[in-house]
Amino acid sequence: MLISNIIKRQVLDVAPYTLTLHDCPIKLNQNENPYDIPPGIKEEIFDLARDRVWSRYPDFVPDAFHTLLAKHVDWRADGVAAGNGSNELIQAILAVTMEPGASLLVVQPTFTLYKLMGTVLGGTVIEHTLNTDMTFNVEAITRSVEQQSPRIVVICSPNNPTGSVLSLNELAQICDASSGLVVVDQAYVEFGGDSAIPLLNVYDNLVVLRTFSKACGLAGLRVGYSLASAEITEQIAKAKLPYNVDFFSQAAATAVIQWWPRFHKIVDLLISERERVFAEMSQMGGVTVYRSHANFLLFETLSTPEMVFGQFVDRGILIRDVSHYPMLERMLRVTIGTPEQNDAFLDGLSEIVIEEGNAK
Amino acid sequence: MLISNIIKRQVLDVAPYTLTLHDCPIKLNQNENPYDIPPGIKEEIFDLARDRVWSRYPDFVPDAFHTLLAKHVDWRADGVAAGNGSNELIQAILAVTMEPGASLLVVQPTFTLYKLMGTVLGGTVIEHTLNTDMTFNVEAITRSVEQQSPRIVVICSPNNPTGSVLSLNELAQICDASSGLVVVDQAYVEFGGDSAIPLLNVYDNLVVLRTFSKACGLAGLRVGYSLASAEITEQIAKAKLPYNVDFFSQAAATAVIQWWPRFHKIVDLLISERERVFAEMSQMGGVTVYRSHANFLLFETLSTPEMVFGQFVDRGILIRDVSHYPMLERMLRVTIGTPEQNDAFLDGLSEIVIEEGNAK
Repeated sequence: MLISNIIKRQVLDVAPYTLTLHDCPIKLNQNENPYDIPPGIKEEIFDLARDRVWSRYPDFVPDAFHTLLAKHVDWRADGVAAGNGSNELIQAILAVTMEPGASLLVVQPTFTLYKLMGTVLGGTVIEHTLNTDMTFNVEAITRSVEQQSPRIVVICSPNNPTGSVLSLNELAQICDASSGLVVVDQAYVEFGGDSAIPLLNVYDNLVVLRTFSKACGLAGLRVGYSLASAEITEQIAKAKLPYNVDFFSQAAATAVIQWWPRFHKIVDLLISERERVFAEMSQMGGVTVYRSHANFLLFETLSTPEMVFGQFVDRGILIRDVSHYPMLERMLRVTIGTPEQNDAFLDGLSEIVIEEGNAK
Repeated sequence: MLISNIIKRQVLDVAPYTLTLHDCPIKLNQNENPYDIPPGIKEEIFDLARDRVWSRYPDFVPDAFHTLLAKHVDWRADGVAAGNGSNELIQAILAVTMEPGASLLVVQPTFTLYKLMGTVLGGTVIEHTLNTDMTFNVEAITRSVEQQSPRIVVICSPNNPTGSVLSLNELAQICDASSGLVVVDQAYVEFGGDSAIPLLNVYDNLVVLRTFSKACGLAGLRVGYSLASAEITEQIAKAKLPYNVDFFSQAAATAVIQWWPRFHKIVDLLISERERVFAEMSQMGGVTVYRSHANFLLFETLSTPEMVFGQFVDRGILIRDVSHYPMLERMLRVTIGTPEQNDAFLDGLSEIVIEEGNAK
């Protein structure tokens, strides 16, 4: 067997999307919600699972769940597609659109999976970059969309790993310019920026992605969804697997929606913590921190990211070294945790920058 | 927006894989295991889930789970890839191999998803058919593999919806003939036919798919896996989503492995029930039933499948009308249930064929 005769060239060429594991008591590296689902809500879900026959498939297409999600976000049920995390929807959208000659426009630095999946699925990737202050260069993106007609534009807003956002007007401008799809990944939208959902009524080429993994605290159970026209949703569904959302994950997501005010309070706490951490970091000499509308902050110090990362690991705190992203050679990302975790991070950072100052 | 400028031609052309829902007290239509996970095992899994923080992602790559699966089937851990049902592995394998000019060989009638996904992902589908007695025509398949060099051959053995199997020698013959991958979907192998795993040591172009949805009774939780060389597994993994198996499904599959002897007993019961139902159906005038090595039986009567299907629904029994599959214009499929469910099916069938006889 000659592997190059079997596996597509662009797949062989691509490096796998990997994550090196470190074990630290304080985990601020994956933009997770630091608060677990409350015990009482867990028990409600166990009660449902106790009565459910596990050997039976979930719904072929989870219509009831789609209807619930539609009501939650005020969109039409036939324009909702739920998946095994919003990643599955990204994959499905790219699977039905990418082919030789088709292109995908991404704005770097951003979530790695768009480019990886677009490449694996046979598309050409057009890469733009954010401005140096990490804001979107909407004029440049719009011009490129007009001139190069990418079949898909993917914008992550709030953007991972920078926290940057696109306004509704800016998004509308890109939708106007595009003859293809504009996919807005709003995994972090509960933490800031405008919901793109109102624009779905105006633009039939817009797809909005949402997830239960961040604000909703269900990263462990993998539920996300797409919102779009019924026409586009029908096509996306052709690349989705049947029975793709298991019964337990559906039950957990349903409970989160039912208890939404409780989760909303946690989001408010995390937003106020983000602002507090941002303010404290801004006042530290030697630290540059960027405004963020998500549940994380992008920053740099005078040392290399590798060194800072290691110094935090030594203190039992895991953050993310994002220096391999385009433009972010000097950067790290920290997820907003509980107030105590954030204090530990801030204490660690101030010690690290004092040491940096002394070493100068 | 012009949808034909955005969505790939072959996706627009393909009909979605759909399933019409009927509600019947006896459900023998999806090849599910009729026995639920025992309450005590459910509680063990709830205990784990109670202590687990749900807002934390599952492992990026579930190494510990891969190791457990590897031990369970006696294969190398770096040759295992777990997925959200084995469907996700089918999708990933096709995603890294299918492109314009690449082809996929399937043997009809078989599981619908191979052709659907192969087409959506840009490949050409070469279709063979089973012999009229529903056995594999291995000579014809081998000849076609030699002459047309498909990048992927997918064989479902035991085959859904016919229950046919390929022997290890026959599979080896196809592997020998192929310069591409030979994927054997063994979703039903616990019910009959040979495990293809021993051939993994001999053929580096073989991929074996397994699932927890049938014999293991976890259809509701979506866990499947692929077994192949480390080299092939690394490439398949590039099209798999990170965090693709949620923590609860991993815990449930782990419990099934720990309690495997208990599940094995249920499999033995279902096999003996299959043989009993087969024997009784064989003796009914006007019924043709095919030998099966899976947990279902393919059959026909003198009436149209549509009529027989409806008569069973009237009796509160849901079976599957498979007449839309190639070669199966006159056929239905019934899943083996509990002895009581099987009795109800047999009673219904004998009434239906007596009515057919009277109507002649």
